[in-house]
Formats: sequence, structure tokens, C-alpha cells
Amino acid sequence: MSSDDFRTIWLKPDDPGVVQIIDQRQLPHDFVVHDLGHWSDGVEAIEDMYVRGAPLIGATAAWSLYLAALHGQFPKEEVSRAADALLESRPTAVNLRWAIERVLQRIDGVADDELAAAIRRDAEAICTEDIEICLGIGRAGLPLLEAIAERKGGGPVNVLTHCNAGALATINWGTATAPVYLAHQQGMAVHVWVDETRPRNQGTQLTAWELAQNGVPHTVIVDNAGGHLMQHGDVDIVITGTDRTTRTGDVANKIGTYLKALAAYDNGIPFYVALPSTTIDWQTRDGIAEIPIEERNAEEVTMSYGRHGDERIAVRTVAEGSPVGNPAFDVTPARLVTGLITERGVCAASEDGLTGLFPEEAAG
Amino acid sequence: MSSDDFRTIWLKPDDPGVVQIIDQRQLPHDFVVHDLGHWSDGVEAIEDMYVRGAPLIGATAAWSLYLAALHGQFPKEEVSRAADALLESRPTAVNLRWAIERVLQRIDGVADDELAAAIRRDAEAICTEDIEICLGIGRAGLPLLEAIAERKGGGPVNVLTHCNAGALATINWGTATAPVYLAHQQGMAVHVWVDETRPRNQGTQLTAWELAQNGVPHTVIVDNAGGHLMQHGDVDIVITGTDRTTRTGDVANKIGTYLKALAAYDNGIPFYVALPSTTIDWQTRDGIAEIPIEERNAEEVTMSYGRHGDERIAVRTVAEGSPVGNPAFDVTPARLVTGLITERGVCAASEDGLTGLFPEEAAG
Repeated sequence: MSSDDFRTIWLKPDDPGVVQIIDQRQLPHDFVVHDLGHWSDGVEAIEDMYVRGAPLIGATAAWSLYLAALHGQFPKEEVSRAADALLESRPTAVNLRWAIERVLQRIDGVADDELAAAIRRDAEAICTEDIEICLGIGRAGLPLLEAIAERKGGGPVNVLTHCNAGALATINWGTATAPVYLAHQQGMAVHVWVDETRPRNQGTQLTAWELAQNGVPHTVIVDNAGGHLMQHGDVDIVITGTDRTTRTGDVANKIGTYLKALAAYDNGIPFYVALPSTTIDWQTRDGIAEIPIEERNAEEVTMSYGRHGDERIAVRTVAEGSPVGNPAFDVTPARLVTGLITERGVCAASEDGLTGLFPEEAAG
Repeated sequence: MSSDDFRTIWLKPDDPGVVQIIDQRQLPHDFVVHDLGHWSDGVEAIEDMYVRGAPLIGATAAWSLYLAALHGQFPKEEVSRAADALLESRPTAVNLRWAIERVLQRIDGVADDELAAAIRRDAEAICTEDIEICLGIGRAGLPLLEAIAERKGGGPVNVLTHCNAGALATINWGTATAPVYLAHQQGMAVHVWVDETRPRNQGTQLTAWELAQNGVPHTVIVDNAGGHLMQHGDVDIVITGTDRTTRTGDVANKIGTYLKALAAYDNGIPFYVALPSTTIDWQTRDGIAEIPIEERNAEEVTMSYGRHGDERIAVRTVAEGSPVGNPAFDVTPARLVTGLITERGVCAASEDGLTGLFPEEAAG
């Protein structure tokens, strides 16, 4: 795999009636391509997390609407039905709503026999734009790593990341990983501490996999270890992704992000969040009070998936008698965030910082 | 199981030639009693972690020396041979050395035919003293929970704990759990958030099991979740155990403890550490700089053990190509610790606090 030609979603070669994705649940042990033949396959892929990550979820929704238009007997009704189902598939994903609303707006007034082609163009545009956004984030974040490399004068720049805000979460390049990939491509010595990211192990399963594919040095650690590493000078910078950022710079991200932000703050280590501006929620000001946190299935905690011989199986780690809680996200308050890395540049995690980069939202 | 008659190690009823333990590796799915018929079974039990927790390791060593004296053809030589092997079984466990040296000292000059009886008395004394220490910690910590219960005026007191500093780590009652068990026994509504505690899952495997056995309401969560729960008022107090506490109140404990202490501090939630005074290292002042942190086996991170059908098996979660780091402990600086709960009472996590309770150490 080379970063330049990698993709997470594409139209099947020689069959434009099928969209293909990577079944990310099979990673890191197996690379399995999964066909989406019907829009409901897209709903399933989002709901059951064949795909995850805000940009990829948005793109999958757009491509699912294309499938609805293409295969539906009454295309407009089918698209509308698909849109409703897709919106329900991951209620916290703000990008999902954004992509669906964008597509619906673009096809307003388009004739039935033009519908599929119009949505296909828009889905392709969403993917191309996402790649541009990720590269923008990479270019904006790269100087942060270069400054550390220069200060250290040799030895790797140690980046810690949580969950997967990588190429697998987007179309390519990723958000949090984009500066790392660009740094690695230009020959900088960079090493990534990969948080396992319980309960779904996206770090182990996805981030470690894509870093290994790209030859980026990395070490997998349990989520408990990061604070200790920071205390001992083994982390130079933390970069995570986000599912939703408020107007004021509060950051909702995978559960456990807040703990790493606290540890970074306590040890004077910069904590950056990489985000496409599409994940900024300009209407929300207080992340902790206002962002609803999805409570997910207990099985994510009680069952651990992995390889046993040639099989991928789950083992039950929690006894039947013990109840389980499983909040999927937490909110890191802006005061703990050193800066936000967007496709337009780096800014402070504050309303002033964000509206400085996005003046068109200043009035809101 | 009732807290009062629970034991983690005991002489086999009707056969004083055999010591019995719980094979804690089989928990929480199976409760398996394991016979120690020979001192080398004790070495194996410590080495392969049938038993763990400083007090229980010490007691197992003492009982193994009893078996050596009882069954050895030349009791003194057999005890000496057993002592050497036991010392090697978990080199970092300070309590192990302490228990062995104590027993060897007590039997100095004791005749061969009195040896087994003398060691048996001392092993029993070690167990009785440990139970008294744990109950002392429980009585000292109970008022902290009572004050919260009174302030809340109904609704459960929500305690968060990390790893297992429970009955299973000691002879009975545990350290961090002792106040909880006493509160539950006297009818207080108490609920425990149990950190899974990756990589070895002692929370899931041990703490959740013993709370369930005792009917204490609890919920298993991943290690990432605690900060979010604290932000939302769902945690009233954190109580953990410790492997070693410095003279100045820095606390070495299972990896990840520091992250919970940061979150508790950030949310104004009291963070207490329960400890028998035998684990205070009066010679050490700077925990982060001076306490060496054991780097354990990568397999603890790459493999997850659990139940699959009727079997206990491991699945590999990390791909072969990804390196792994596994620091086993971290150090929580005293500034984040609200107080230390010892068998002599509660004190500030500071040299003044500790020497106030233990004036005999003030000169050191």
C-alpha cells in the first residue's frame, strides 16, 4: 500500500451498480473487500461498523443514496427512504447528516432518470474533497512535527494517538495521521504510540495496521499506558481526531481521549486535534453539557475479538453476572486542547480561533 | 460467599498435609480450588499467577515453607531449598521476601520435629494479621463513604476502582474494597465502577467477580470510560490500592491509575489510595524518578483470554507486525491524591501526613 493510491471506498471496477468498501472489522488479520449492492447494505455497513470514522461514514451514506437512486423502482422515494434509514444508523455522526443533506440539496429538482448520475457525481466529489481536506490537514500539521524534530535534533518525533483517525477513517491520508504520513514520506524519523482503544480496539485493529502498511514505526500500548509514557518524556505530541468540535473548541472524540488530554496538559505536552471543518458544530457551545454521548452495546466490552489459529473468534472476558457500561465518546474541554489542525491551518481551540480561520461563521 | 468467612488460602479440611488456594486464573468463569501438596506447588502457584496480590503472595510463600517442613525428609534443608525457590518465583514482590525472612527468623533454633508446627503457627499468624490490617483499612475508610451517603441523602455512593485491590489480593476483605464491603454489610447503598484494567483485566476477572459474589452492585467499564463518568457526576469517590507508596505520598499502582487520578482532580472528586503500611517505602521520596517500572511480556497486550464455549482460550488482537510496549505500573504524584487510607487511619498523601500516623518513622 502506498499512501498515494489507497482508498477506503470505491465503485466496483466494471460494475457501477456495486460500491466496494473494506470490511474493517476483519482487520488487522484479514483484508476483506465487501460489496454494497443495495442502499441497505450501506446502512448495515455504517451500523455494524464495517466502516467508521466521520468522513468515511459520510461518503458511505452518499454512495448508499446513489445505490438507492440507481436500483430503486421509484428513485426519489427510495432515496428519501434510504436517507431516513441512514440518518438513524449512527445518530452521533454529524458528518452523516451533513453528507445526506448535501446530496438531497444537490438533487432537488433533478429528474428521476438523472438522479443516480447526479448523486454519483456528488459522492465522487465528496470523496475527492475529503482527500483534499486530509492533505490540507497534513500540510497544516506538518510544521508542528518539523519544529519538534528540529528541537530534538535527531531521534524520532514521538506522536501518541487514540483510536483511528487515519486513512481508514477517511477516504485516504486520515486526519490525525495525515501530518505523520507526510512527515514519514519526506524522511522525518517519526514514531507513533498507538492506543489500543478499548472497547473496540480501533488502535490495535486499524491504526497499527495502516501504520504498518505504510512502514511507519509504531508501538501498540494499552490505553492505560500513555500517562506513564508522558511522565517519562516518551511522548512529544498528542494528535487525535474528533467526531464533533463545538464552536468554542470542545472536542467530542472516542472514549478515553479526555484522559490523554489531561495527562498531556499535566506534563506540558502539546495536545492537538485534527479535524475537517465539516465536523465543527457551529451551533454548540458547551460540549460536555450539550453533546449527547451514545451508550453502545455491552457486548463490545464483554467480548474480545481476535485471531485463534486460522479463525477470527470472540472470547467472553466479563462474567455473565456483571453488568456493563459502555459510553462511546467523551468530551475534552477546549482548555486542555493546545490547538486544532484544520484544512485551513492551525488555530486555538476557541471561538476566536475557529472564527479566525472560518470568518464566514463569525456571525453565527 | 459471605465476606466474613471468605478466605483465599486455607488448610484443607481433614488433611493438614495440603494447603488450598483459588486458581484465580480461572476466574471469573470457573471457581477452581487448587491443592498445594508440595512446596513446589506453591512456587508454581506464585510464578504462574494462580495467586497474585502482595499479601496473598506472602501468605502462599509462608504456607509453602510449612509444606516443606512437613513433607521434607530433612525438614531444615527442605525449608531452605524451598525458601530459595520461592524468592525466585516473583522477584519484584517485596512481600514475598518479607514473609520468607519472617518465617526463617522465627524458626531459628527450632528442632526438626517442631518445625512444621512452628511454621504453621506463623503462616496462620501472617494470615490473621493481614485480615486485621484489611479490616483496619475498612474501618478507616468507611466514614468517607458514610459522609458521601449523608450528603447525597439516598441514591448509591458511586465508587470507582482500578485493578484488583480486593479480597482476592489479600486473605480477605482486600484493601481498596474493605470500606466498600463494610458499607455494604451495614446496608449502605453502594455501587462500584470496575475498571477493566488492561492488559491483564484484573478488574473484569477478579474485582467484578468478588463484588458479584458478595452481592455488591457494580458495573464493569473499560479503562477509557472513567473520565467521562466523572465529568457527568456519576462517580463520588475513587479508591485504588497500591504496590508501593513513597514517604512523600507518591503512589505506584497498576498502569492507568495516574489517568484516573488526573480525571478525579479535574472534576473535584476525592481520590483515595488504600494501603497496608507494609507497602510504604520510607526510603523513597520521588516516586516518578525513583520507582523502577516493570516492563512486562508483550503477550499480555497481544493476547486476550476469555471463555469460548466451554473452553478458556486466548485470541490474538494485535497483528504480528506491530511491536508492543507494556509498562505494568505508573506513579501518581501525591498532589493528585486526596488521602491515604491505612490500617491506622486516613492521612494526607505527604510526609507530614504519613509520619503523623506513623511517628516511629518520623526520624528516617
